[in-house]
Amino acid sequence: MKAAIVGGGVIGGGWAARFLLNGWDVAVFDPDPEAQRKIGEVIENARRSLPSLYDRSLPEEGQLIFHASLSDAVQGAAWIQESVPERLELKHKVLGNLTDLAQSDAVIGSSTSGFKPSELNRDGGRAIVAHPFNPVYLLPLVELVGEKSETERAANILRDIGMYPLIVRKEIEAHIADRLLEAVWRESLWLVKDGIATTAEIDEAIRMGFGLRWAQMGLFETYRVAGGEAGMKHFMAQFGPALEWPWTKLMDVPEFTEDLVDLIAGQSDTQSGHMSIRELERLRDDNLVGLLRSLKKSGSGAGGVISSHESALPHSASASLPITGDRQIPQSWTDYNGHMNEAYYLEAGAAATDRFMELIGADADYVAAGQSYFTVENHLRYLDELKEGERLIITTQVLEGEGKRMKLFHFLKNADSKLAATMETLLLHVDLNSRSSCPPGANVASRLGTFAAKHKNLPLPEGAGRYVGQRSQVG
Amino acid sequence: MKAAIVGGGVIGGGWAARFLLNGWDVAVFDPDPEAQRKIGEVIENARRSLPSLYDRSLPEEGQLIFHASLSDAVQGAAWIQESVPERLELKHKVLGNLTDLAQSDAVIGSSTSGFKPSELNRDGGRAIVAHPFNPVYLLPLVELVGEKSETERAANILRDIGMYPLIVRKEIEAHIADRLLEAVWRESLWLVKDGIATTAEIDEAIRMGFGLRWAQMGLFETYRVAGGEAGMKHFMAQFGPALEWPWTKLMDVPEFTEDLVDLIAGQSDTQSGHMSIRELERLRDDNLVGLLRSLKKSGSGAGGVISSHESALPHSASASLPITGDRQIPQSWTDYNGHMNEAYYLEAGAAATDRFMELIGADADYVAAGQSYFTVENHLRYLDELKEGERLIITTQVLEGEGKRMKLFHFLKNADSKLAATMETLLLHVDLNSRSSCPPGANVASRLGTFAAKHKNLPLPEGAGRYVGQRSQVG
Repeated sequence: MKAAIVGGGVIGGGWAARFLLNGWDVAVFDPDPEAQRKIGEVIENARRSLPSLYDRSLPEEGQLIFHASLSDAVQGAAWIQESVPERLELKHKVLGNLTDLAQSDAVIGSSTSGFKPSELNRDGGRAIVAHPFNPVYLLPLVELVGEKSETERAANILRDIGMYPLIVRKEIEAHIADRLLEAVWRESLWLVKDGIATTAEIDEAIRMGFGLRWAQMGLFETYRVAGGEAGMKHFMAQFGPALEWPWTKLMDVPEFTEDLVDLIAGQSDTQSGHMSIRELERLRDDNLVGLLRSLKKSGSGAGGVISSHESALPHSASASLPITGDRQIPQSWTDYNGHMNEAYYLEAGAAATDRFMELIGADADYVAAGQSYFTVENHLRYLDELKEGERLIITTQVLEGEGKRMKLFHFLKNADSKLAATMETLLLHVDLNSRSSCPPGANVASRLGTFAAKHKNLPLPEGAGRYVGQRSQVG
Repeated sequence: MKAAIVGGGVIGGGWAARFLLNGWDVAVFDPDPEAQRKIGEVIENARRSLPSLYDRSLPEEGQLIFHASLSDAVQGAAWIQESVPERLELKHKVLGNLTDLAQSDAVIGSSTSGFKPSELNRDGGRAIVAHPFNPVYLLPLVELVGEKSETERAANILRDIGMYPLIVRKEIEAHIADRLLEAVWRESLWLVKDGIATTAEIDEAIRMGFGLRWAQMGLFETYRVAGGEAGMKHFMAQFGPALEWPWTKLMDVPEFTEDLVDLIAGQSDTQSGHMSIRELERLRDDNLVGLLRSLKKSGSGAGGVISSHESALPHSASASLPITGDRQIPQSWTDYNGHMNEAYYLEAGAAATDRFMELIGADADYVAAGQSYFTVENHLRYLDELKEGERLIITTQVLEGEGKRMKLFHFLKNADSKLAATMETLLLHVDLNSRSSCPPGANVASRLGTFAAKHKNLPLPEGAGRYVGQRSQVG
């Protein structure tokens, strides 16, 4: 699959990264002589963060090509994304060219944050609005506005690359999210202009309070909970009248003077000037990866999008030992020693045990039906450091697999097949109601037995059956 | 220390929980016959979530007492918090009584979301605004408005109970955060009323996109990053003119008709009606705990507040083996088997190793100066299940502590001193520049040696020096 990115910059580069890291080939057209460097920097940021969201590896990266001609760039592209500056006459020109050059079944998306499809297509174009949010490679939201069958077709493609398409029911200037952002921006400008709060104080008012609520539930569900058992109507009866209160007086637009710009830019320097934009970007991305991985546990909001995308990613396969893990090491797994923390070797190893359980049929349905394996012992040997962003591949050898007992030996290797750790793990099969051990079901026993019989002929791995501190044996 | 809570409900109950779980005695005055049940439910929610934010235990809970008389409730209270309904004449009456009854050095805080101190104190009161955010026991933000020395005094107390006081420079209706919330609420009502989006779609537009940005950076810092190297001025030059665009036409207030209330309440039922309020509260709290624990790793925003509060919590101490861990098990540590996941036993054990390193002087400064201990092997034996919310106490015995080698044995016990797991861990002292092993500094070697000599006389723990699957020895 091929995507064409027309107009680079932060948004176009984010689109390029999102497609590329999901295995698409990406062609870029951008007359800016700096385009290659700028897009390269966005993709570099994406490479260190997007794969960290997942506990499986993403497809192999596609090819990135920069073109000097628009027609070369869009040739054969199934998705064409326009992200040129927000000037209607420029959008008309570019979208007109794209309509002529694009293959007839290509989606033509515009990243516009403000214009409606009827405005964009006034001269006969067929673009839809596909409005993403920065950083495009991490935030799932894309607002889709336009002809119904076209937005639905686009939505399916976006889901395939891990995004969350939101089809807007009626076209309106600025769609949905930017209307809300616009309202906050306007109010914030007043607060700064009137000396009520600085930019830093407004940011704290957001991220110490409702920002945390909105990352997981949004506005209405948060208020529903706040309303308590009395329900949403009760909440509105309480909060509704406040709309008529005096503070709605500031709804006009503050005059956009040079003084106001200087005031805000100066406060922003005081607040964040000690960090470069690159450092801020990485801090933001690390935070987003952490927040998203955290939401993945409950499946709320954006966390659910990642889980469902992940479950569609193929498992790696191998002819010899089964591959039970293949992933990138996220930033949040490293510690003050500058390498992967010891606890996450076990998190990765435990995930490999889970994957092996799936392979023998002791999967989520089996657990839901009341049986599982519980770990009784683990022995980890740390042989080499692993760093953030490295690929980690785990293979598993069965040492015992009879009756209630299952003893596994995980090999944790980096991309160069260098052994970074081993984990020997003993599990007992249990009944989840009585919480006591019992033999597994026939299907699980048989599939485990097959692995055990096959692996019995392999040599006992170096390090198996050893106690902590025992010296290596020669021979 | 004693706090008096005047007016229960979700906000008053949240204040009660925040003080109580930080070791304060709490006296409640609320004529509502349901007050005890309602506040009890909030405190129950807080008990399962607030301690989970920390990797140390909070102080022992204070005493909670309900009073039938206001004067009994405020007697001896250092903080008095008014959270009665948002009607000015009622606030005047209650705050007037509090001014008469309170001890002279008590802080009198009002939870008002809208009124200014000058309005609250029109009849001669001395209250400040101390406006918290729901859930009060998890979100750090408190907006403080009022006389400078009084808000500064209040800020110190709030920091002690893990909150983030934001002193507002000038009084204004609705302070800071609620002005922003109000703007979003107003715009959202238009979007629903005009059929552009449902409540569920607006929530997705928030939590799939900018909600994630705002949980960690707020508005201005996010835009600063989006502006890139060109800086905040450039960003404003791009985005500023949009303020004059057509969508600002909807800045008047939608009429608050019964139809609009029904429309929104109905959509909210469709969106969230499959979960009870209690279930939604728990989902929200689990998500918030996860997000906050995630931000704690980078120290961004609310995560920094938790780290600094945690570092002020005392370590538990013991006469025999050193206590190297004492904490509550967070929800995010449990797995599909309904108990603490095997990987988090190691996370807890690794934290105990870190704490032991601190005890022998191999602390953050020592690591920053270029030396540390790296783990080479771990052996974990899982002896009993641990559940969400249980207390976990870890003690550590030194098995070896000479030269480069340090072998520790951690005992993980629940609150009833029942052994839930053991962890045997072997570490080597390393130079962080050469990444190779070397002997520790003299101070560390000596302190480790003292522990080792003392523990040498203890019996070897059951389970030490064993390989995976080795049967227990008798005698």
